[in-house]
Amino acid sequence: MRWSQAFIPTLRDDPADSEAVSHKLLVRGGYVRQLMSGIYSMLPLGQRVRDKVMAIIREEMNAINGQEFLLPNLHPREIWDRTGRTVSFAEVLMTFDDNKGSPVVLSPTHEEIFATVAGELTSYKQLPQMWYHIQTKFRDEPRPKSGLLRVREFTMKDSYSFDIDEAGLDVQFDNHRNAYLRIFERLGITAVPVAASSGAMGGKESVEFMMQSDIGEDSVVHCANCGYAANREKATSAIPDVDDPPESGALEVFDTPGVRTIADLEVFEGGAVADRQIKTLVYVLDGEFALLLLRGDHALEEQKVQDGTGASEVRPAHEEEIRALLGADAGSLGAVGVDGIPVYADHALSGRSSMTTGANENDKHIRNVDVARDIAVTKWLDLRSVEDGEGCPNCGEPLNLFKAIEVGHIFKLGTFYAEPLGVNVLDEHGKTVPIVMGSYGIGVERNMAASIEANHDDKGIVWPLEIAPFAVVITVIRPDDAATMDTAEALYANLWGRGVEVLLDDRDERPGVKFNDAELIGIPYRVTVGPRGIAEGMCEVVDRRTGESTEIAIDSAADEIAGLLGV
Amino acid sequence: MRWSQAFIPTLRDDPADSEAVSHKLLVRGGYVRQLMSGIYSMLPLGQRVRDKVMAIIREEMNAINGQEFLLPNLHPREIWDRTGRTVSFAEVLMTFDDNKGSPVVLSPTHEEIFATVAGELTSYKQLPQMWYHIQTKFRDEPRPKSGLLRVREFTMKDSYSFDIDEAGLDVQFDNHRNAYLRIFERLGITAVPVAASSGAMGGKESVEFMMQSDIGEDSVVHCANCGYAANREKATSAIPDVDDPPESGALEVFDTPGVRTIADLEVFEGGAVADRQIKTLVYVLDGEFALLLLRGDHALEEQKVQDGTGASEVRPAHEEEIRALLGADAGSLGAVGVDGIPVYADHALSGRSSMTTGANENDKHIRNVDVARDIAVTKWLDLRSVEDGEGCPNCGEPLNLFKAIEVGHIFKLGTFYAEPLGVNVLDEHGKTVPIVMGSYGIGVERNMAASIEANHDDKGIVWPLEIAPFAVVITVIRPDDAATMDTAEALYANLWGRGVEVLLDDRDERPGVKFNDAELIGIPYRVTVGPRGIAEGMCEVVDRRTGESTEIAIDSAADEIAGLLGV
Repeated sequence: MRWSQAFIPTLRDDPADSEAVSHKLLVRGGYVRQLMSGIYSMLPLGQRVRDKVMAIIREEMNAINGQEFLLPNLHPREIWDRTGRTVSFAEVLMTFDDNKGSPVVLSPTHEEIFATVAGELTSYKQLPQMWYHIQTKFRDEPRPKSGLLRVREFTMKDSYSFDIDEAGLDVQFDNHRNAYLRIFERLGITAVPVAASSGAMGGKESVEFMMQSDIGEDSVVHCANCGYAANREKATSAIPDVDDPPESGALEVFDTPGVRTIADLEVFEGGAVADRQIKTLVYVLDGEFALLLLRGDHALEEQKVQDGTGASEVRPAHEEEIRALLGADAGSLGAVGVDGIPVYADHALSGRSSMTTGANENDKHIRNVDVARDIAVTKWLDLRSVEDGEGCPNCGEPLNLFKAIEVGHIFKLGTFYAEPLGVNVLDEHGKTVPIVMGSYGIGVERNMAASIEANHDDKGIVWPLEIAPFAVVITVIRPDDAATMDTAEALYANLWGRGVEVLLDDRDERPGVKFNDAELIGIPYRVTVGPRGIAEGMCEVVDRRTGESTEIAIDSAADEIAGLLGV
Repeated sequence: MRWSQAFIPTLRDDPADSEAVSHKLLVRGGYVRQLMSGIYSMLPLGQRVRDKVMAIIREEMNAINGQEFLLPNLHPREIWDRTGRTVSFAEVLMTFDDNKGSPVVLSPTHEEIFATVAGELTSYKQLPQMWYHIQTKFRDEPRPKSGLLRVREFTMKDSYSFDIDEAGLDVQFDNHRNAYLRIFERLGITAVPVAASSGAMGGKESVEFMMQSDIGEDSVVHCANCGYAANREKATSAIPDVDDPPESGALEVFDTPGVRTIADLEVFEGGAVADRQIKTLVYVLDGEFALLLLRGDHALEEQKVQDGTGASEVRPAHEEEIRALLGADAGSLGAVGVDGIPVYADHALSGRSSMTTGANENDKHIRNVDVARDIAVTKWLDLRSVEDGEGCPNCGEPLNLFKAIEVGHIFKLGTFYAEPLGVNVLDEHGKTVPIVMGSYGIGVERNMAASIEANHDDKGIVWPLEIAPFAVVITVIRPDDAATMDTAEALYANLWGRGVEVLLDDRDERPGVKFNDAELIGIPYRVTVGPRGIAEGMCEVVDRRTGESTEIAIDSAADEIAGLLGV
C-alpha cells in the first residue's frame, strides 16, 4: 500500500478525555475514530490489526478442535427469559420490539443460542464438541471509557464446549486455558490466569486472564510466593484474629452525638477501635432489603454479595429507604434485635464479642455486642474486600494487589444453561442427561488495545510483528527523485512478492514527519531509501523496538529484510 | 476434519415452508438453522462457505484499491435524520433508545457513517478513495422468506467511493461493475447488470446484478437483440400508438350500473375497450393524496411513483379514504374536473382523446374525455409496468421478462450524502466542493444461496470448487477395518499437507448413507477408500458435478487429486 493513496489520518494531538495510552495512540495513529460514546470505527490500519488478531485466535481455536460458526445478533427475548438473563444482564442489555412487536435481544453474548443449536445433539457419542464464532457483541455499558478497552459494540471470540460430564469439561477448560495463554503471548501480552467471579454468566468456576495495568478496571490479588491469584471480587486472604474479652457484658445503648462514621466512633470517648466495630450496610437484593455486616475496618466487595446470595441485582439502599426501614440514618445502623430482614454477615465477625454497633437510632450506639448471642445472622458469607499486604490464603505470605485489564475470561458453566433450555443427550446407559457446558471469551478490540498498553514507547506504538498492520515501512526521502522512487518501488515489489506486507511512504512530506508517523503507527521495521544512500548503494533499516539502525546494501536489502522477518 | 467429530446435522426432510431449493439444501445439508423468522445461524459448513465467499469478495475489492474498514452497527439516529433516511428506510429500520435514552439506529447500510468518516478528507489530492467493509446489516423485512435469500440480519460487503467529480465516480463505478462480474463468475453465478431504481439509497443512477431464477423477487426486462436490460421497476418499452378519433366530442356522463373494473366496462354496452379507458388510482404519497392515471390496459409500477415524484412513502389509499376524497368507490373514479389534488399521468395517455373514465359517482362513467382538454395533469411520468413481449425501447425487438434474484447493486450517489452531511474538500482551485460518492453492495449469504440456486441437482448441492466447504471428502467403507482406516488417514494427511481441505467420513454408517450425505452437502470430489479397492491397490474418485467415476491407484492418489484441483 502506498501511503499517499491510503487513508491513514495521523494526528498531532491526543483525543479529548483520553486516559489510556492505547486510546491516544489508536486515535493519533489513524487506527480508529469514535462515532459516539463507546462506539468506534476501525480505519484501514485498525482493521488490518484486528484481522491479524482474529487470525491468531482462530488458529488457536482450530488447534483445540474448535468448529467455527456464526450465530446471529438478534435473539428472541423469550430464550433469554428462560435462563433468567434478561434480569442478570439487564444493566447492559439492549432490547427492543421488532416491527412486528416481537421482543428481541441484541446479543451481549451467545450462551443461550449456542445451547439452543446444541439441542440437536442426541447422544454422548457426539460429544465432546467445541464450537466458536467471532461475532459482534452489544453491551450498553453505562460508562464507556479508555478507547477500545470498554465499549458498547465490539467483536468477541466466544467458544462453547459441550461434554457428557465434568471430566470432559475439565479437559476443554484446560485446552482453552492453554490456548488463551498462547494467544496472549502471540499478542505481546503478559496475562496471569486468576480465579474470578462468574457474575451474570452463571456456572460455578471461572478464570480471568489479567494483564497488569494502572488503567485497568479490575483489581487482582497475587501471591508471589505460591502463585495464588484471584480477582479481588473473588479473592480471599488470611488475616490475624482480633482478641476479644472472653465474654461480652450486657448490651448497653449509649449516646454518640455527631458520630456518623467508623472513624468518628474510633475517636469518640467510650467508642471503639475499628476492628471492634460492626459495620452495618443496607442493600437491596433483587428488590428486597438485606443487612450486610462487616468488621468496622473492612470494606465490602459488592460482587461477593451477588455471588454469595445469588441475587442478580444488587444496590445500596437509598437514604430514605434506610430511614423508613430502620428508623435511623447510615452511621447509626445495627443488626441487633432486627427481625424480618435477612442479615448477611462476613466470616470475620464470626465468634466476635464485645463489639460496638449502631442502635438504629440517630446518635446512639450499642456496646457489648456478642454477635452469636445478639444478632440473628441469616447466612455467613465472604463479603470482605482483600487489601494489599494481607496474608495469602494458601501460604500466608503477603499478597500483592494491583490494577489489571481483563483480556479473557473462561467459565465452567456446568448445566446452568442446559437445564432451563432442555439441552439433553442420552448417556451410555441410555439415560437422558443435561449437557455440561463451558464458555470462553476473548475480546478482539480490547486485546488490540491491551497489546498497545504493553507495547509502546513515548514515540508511539511498538507492535509485535505478528499483529503489526505492516511488517515494513519503506520511507522514501525525496520521492520526487526518479532514481530514488525506482529503487524504493523495486524493493517494495520484491518484498510483496515474498509475502512481506510493506507500506511505501511515498508522500510529499519532510523526512522528519515521515519518521515520526512511522514510529507513531508502530511498524516493526523502517527502511529508509534516499538519494544519498543510493549513491553509496546503501539503505538504512531501523528496528522500531530497539531503535537500532543498520546500513545494508540495497542489492541485498530484500534478502536481509526477509531474513529479519524469518520469511 | 473428521465427520465423526464434526457437527454436520444432515436431515432427510425439507424444512417447513421452504420454497427455494437453496433453503431446502442449506437446512438439509446441515449448513444453517433458523433461530427465528429471517434470522439464521451458520453451522460449521455454512461458515466455511461464507468465509470463502468473503475471501473472494475481499480479494476483488483489494484489486480495485479498496481499503478495508469496519464501521459499527450502532449509529446515532441524528445522522440518519439529517439525510432523511429515518423516513425513506422506515419500513425496515430497527431503531431504539439506548439505556441513556439516546436514539440509535441498528444499521441497515452505512452510507451515512462512511460519509461521516470521509469528513476528515480535506483536499482533492487525497482523492480518489475506495473504502469498504464486510459487516452485519439489520433490515426488519416484513416478509422474510426463502432461507438466506431474504433475511433480517445478514452480512454485506459494502464499499464507498469518494471522488472529486463525476468522471472519477464513473471510473470507480466501472471498476466495481467489473469486480462484481468477476465475483459472480467465481461464485458460479451468471448475473446480468441491469438498470435499476435507486430507491431509498438516493442518487441518480444504479445498476443491479440479476440472476435469472423463478424464485426471484425481482422482475427483469431484457432484450436479446441489443442487450438492453433493466429491472421492471425502472424498465421502459416501446408500445404501438392507439388510434383515437381526431377529436373528442363533448363530455358525457352515462350510467354504468354494476361496472366496477376495466374489464366490466369493456363488455358493458356503450363501454370502451381497455386501451381507450383511463384507469384512475388514488395513492397516498408521504401523507398526501394523489391521483395516478394509466391507460386501462396498463398496470402501475409502484416504484416508478416513488422515483417519479420523489415521495418516500407510497401506498394505495384505503377504501374509506377514497370515498371521502372523491365521493365514489374504486371502479368509478376519474380525474376529470378534479381540483386541488395532484394528478400524475402516465406518458401513454399523452395526447389521447375520446377516452372513457369514471365520473366520481358510483355506477357512472364519462366518455369523450380529451386528456389535454379535460384533465389538469400536474406531471407526466412513466408509471407503467412493462409487459413481456413489448418492444425494446432501444431497438424495438420484443422484450423478455423474467424473474430474478438481485445478487448485487451499485449506486452512483453523487452528492446525495455529502451535501446534507457537509462532506467537502477543497478542489484544485481552492474551492470547497462536496465529495462525489458511490456505494456498492453485495450480500454474502444471499450470494451463497444464489450459488446453490445455480449449482445443484436432485441429489443436493454442487458447489463450485472455490467456495466448497471442503474440496474432497474421503468416504471410508468399513472404518472398523484397520488397514482401510490407515490408508484413508494417510491420504487425508497427505492432502492436508498440500493445503487441500479434506473431510474424512469415518462415521460408522452404511456406505449408501455416506454417499448420499456427500452428494447432499456438495463436496466437489469424493474419494472412496474400502477394503476391496485396497486389496487391488485402488480407490475411486467421483466428480460431484459430472458424476464421473475414475479408479486410481492408491499410491498415486494424492498426486492425482492434487492435479485435479490444480494445487
